Amino acid sequence: MLKGKIEIQNRVPVENIFAKENSLINLIYTPGVAYIATEIGKNKELAYDYTSKWNNVAIVCDGSRVLGLGNVGPDAALPVMEGKSVLFKILGGINAIPLCIATQNKEEIINFVKYIQPIFGAINIEDIESPKVLEIVERLKEEISLPVFHDDQHGTAIITLSALINSLKLVKKQLEKIKVVILGAGSAGYGITNILASAGCKNIIVVDSNGAIYKGRRDLMNNPFKSEIASKSNPEQIEGSLDLVMKGCDVFIGVSGKGNILNNKIVSSMNVDPIIFALSNPDPEVLPPDALDAGAKIVATGRSDFPNQVNNAVVFPSVIRSLLDLRVKVLDDHLMVDVAYAIADLVECQHLKYDYIIPQINDPRILPVVTQTLKSVIQSTATTNIVK
Amino acid sequence: MLKGKIEIQNRVPVENIFAKENSLINLIYTPGVAYIATEIGKNKELAYDYTSKWNNVAIVCDGSRVLGLGNVGPDAALPVMEGKSVLFKILGGINAIPLCIATQNKEEIINFVKYIQPIFGAINIEDIESPKVLEIVERLKEEISLPVFHDDQHGTAIITLSALINSLKLVKKQLEKIKVVILGAGSAGYGITNILASAGCKNIIVVDSNGAIYKGRRDLMNNPFKSEIASKSNPEQIEGSLDLVMKGCDVFIGVSGKGNILNNKIVSSMNVDPIIFALSNPDPEVLPPDALDAGAKIVATGRSDFPNQVNNAVVFPSVIRSLLDLRVKVLDDHLMVDVAYAIADLVECQHLKYDYIIPQINDPRILPVVTQTLKSVIQSTATTNIVK
Repeated sequence: MLKGKIEIQNRVPVENIFAKENSLINLIYTPGVAYIATEIGKNKELAYDYTSKWNNVAIVCDGSRVLGLGNVGPDAALPVMEGKSVLFKILGGINAIPLCIATQNKEEIINFVKYIQPIFGAINIEDIESPKVLEIVERLKEEISLPVFHDDQHGTAIITLSALINSLKLVKKQLEKIKVVILGAGSAGYGITNILASAGCKNIIVVDSNGAIYKGRRDLMNNPFKSEIASKSNPEQIEGSLDLVMKGCDVFIGVSGKGNILNNKIVSSMNVDPIIFALSNPDPEVLPPDALDAGAKIVATGRSDFPNQVNNAVVFPSVIRSLLDLRVKVLDDHLMVDVAYAIADLVECQHLKYDYIIPQINDPRILPVVTQTLKSVIQSTATTNIVK
Repeated sequence: MLKGKIEIQNRVPVENIFAKENSLINLIYTPGVAYIATEIGKNKELAYDYTSKWNNVAIVCDGSRVLGLGNVGPDAALPVMEGKSVLFKILGGINAIPLCIATQNKEEIINFVKYIQPIFGAINIEDIESPKVLEIVERLKEEISLPVFHDDQHGTAIITLSALINSLKLVKKQLEKIKVVILGAGSAGYGITNILASAGCKNIIVVDSNGAIYKGRRDLMNNPFKSEIASKSNPEQIEGSLDLVMKGCDVFIGVSGKGNILNNKIVSSMNVDPIIFALSNPDPEVLPPDALDAGAKIVATGRSDFPNQVNNAVVFPSVIRSLLDLRVKVLDDHLMVDVAYAIADLVECQHLKYDYIIPQINDPRILPVVTQTLKSVIQSTATTNIVK
């Protein structure tokens, strides 16, 4: 039995630490540590130098929407977040501490994140149900001083745009001219809509359980995030079911959390060279062999056991590593578009193939290119976007 | 620059984890982790088997009373708690995560601990000011399902009793007959009074900034913990200052948080063979050379750079390791007395010396003897004291 995927380890040489001639213990604990504590008490900024704060990220999760499993609770979320922490370490060298918490109340989650600020360099919000989580993320961006990354929203948006940019090169279509259908209007659907709109995509239709989202749809009143989606998509205000809006579309992006939704008939109703990103985990909206049989040209999933893994794991370790190192506070849509293009460009045109549209998760070029992109954008703008 | 004393490390073999033929990544993350998450969702108990919960301890601190430095805040507390985490790991093999939080509000701290229960096997409360912390600990013992250890109270009490037991062997005095003065009525003073009373010590006088504590002292009304101290100590209800009550006493235990308090004159007013435990950190109530000059027979401090380190670090890693392994919920005063005797007995009579009254912090015999003691007491009583 594994009994846990991560552990705390010491970064100090502990061998013979209690030997009389070894004074290290007097430095790292009492009495020596009192000096460091006093100095940080006078100037909090020194915590970045004298503690692991610079490299600590909180994975905050209430267990209300874990993978595609739904509200399984914080205890059940823990093994998932430990797995995520493993990826944070391997791919970003980051200490990611899973904080699966026993409250699903919005204000309590916001307060919880405020409480833990002294320990962390950044906050990663994970697997909390939408739209609650979108409000939590917006509030935290305003109310705390650390960068707030919402992987389900931001990470998924970036890697989806990267994959789309390269897919369009292969089928020779332009982002400005294609029609994209997004199934799912939760965190991922909201994030993808925002990034595609920022990148210049003009014809996006987002479908939720009530069909296509359009301006003025009655049930949007209580959901400002779906209203925002309506304002950025569906220019012709088409109403109707998934089957209907899929007709003639170029790209399907599935982030519904539900498997086995896209049948043969729907796929064959798409425009020529259909692109299908069935990103729900663990069960994609359509399995790759079935989509290809139905005529899809390019198929991607979020899973590691199929080609074209469009998974936020390609993005989040490098993005958060860069946020930490550069002390960037806000990752806005335009920064995310730049990062998406930089990651897409890592697959050179001569290597692009229907089953190789984005770099592998562990491509060592991702981190330097992401850091460089953020660095140049930040330097060219004001320095107000720096964590103080 | 150290930039932190601890880090997260992986417990899984990550080499070549992204190679096609390696399926581990599919097990520890999506899609495979979904199975484990679902199982824990049905039965939370499984988190002890499938995650690191069994070995995770939260060090919860609000920075309101860090070492003897006072209210330096949670940022300043972080290097101290990282040092503590290092000791947890070396001496107990425990993952101790420093959670220095940005609230000093009692109810918010209690709620915070309730939120984090899913991740941890035990809670260690640290460096929170008294009497607030004593109420927090009492409340948490009632209101959460995990064991709650308060090192400043429980750890200090156990090791102080161990040291006293062995000191009394050296000076040939009996616990039931001696007069003990405790300076300081915070967490440590409260804990030591409780354990000494439980162990059979009949004449304890606790002194705070207003002098000796006695039943009915006016200012005790608003502090139930000092009232409890009054009910367990000062049988003759003596009033007066430290100088006065120290006359003729056998043992001085300083947990005042203030250095340089005990002068030559006070020490020489004590009974024959005075025992002085000056435990405040980083500055003890009297420095060992000065105390010995003034006639003290046995002197101990909390520091590692003098002989006789009466520091809760001798106790907490083994006690918490045992609480985790045995799933013990409540460590009551009688269990603590038994543990103190077991630790004291590790120094055999023929080895006892004035400057060797307790085992060294890293004595490998401490953990097995503590575990065995708790195991036998738990087994001989009901099994109701087990974490469910």
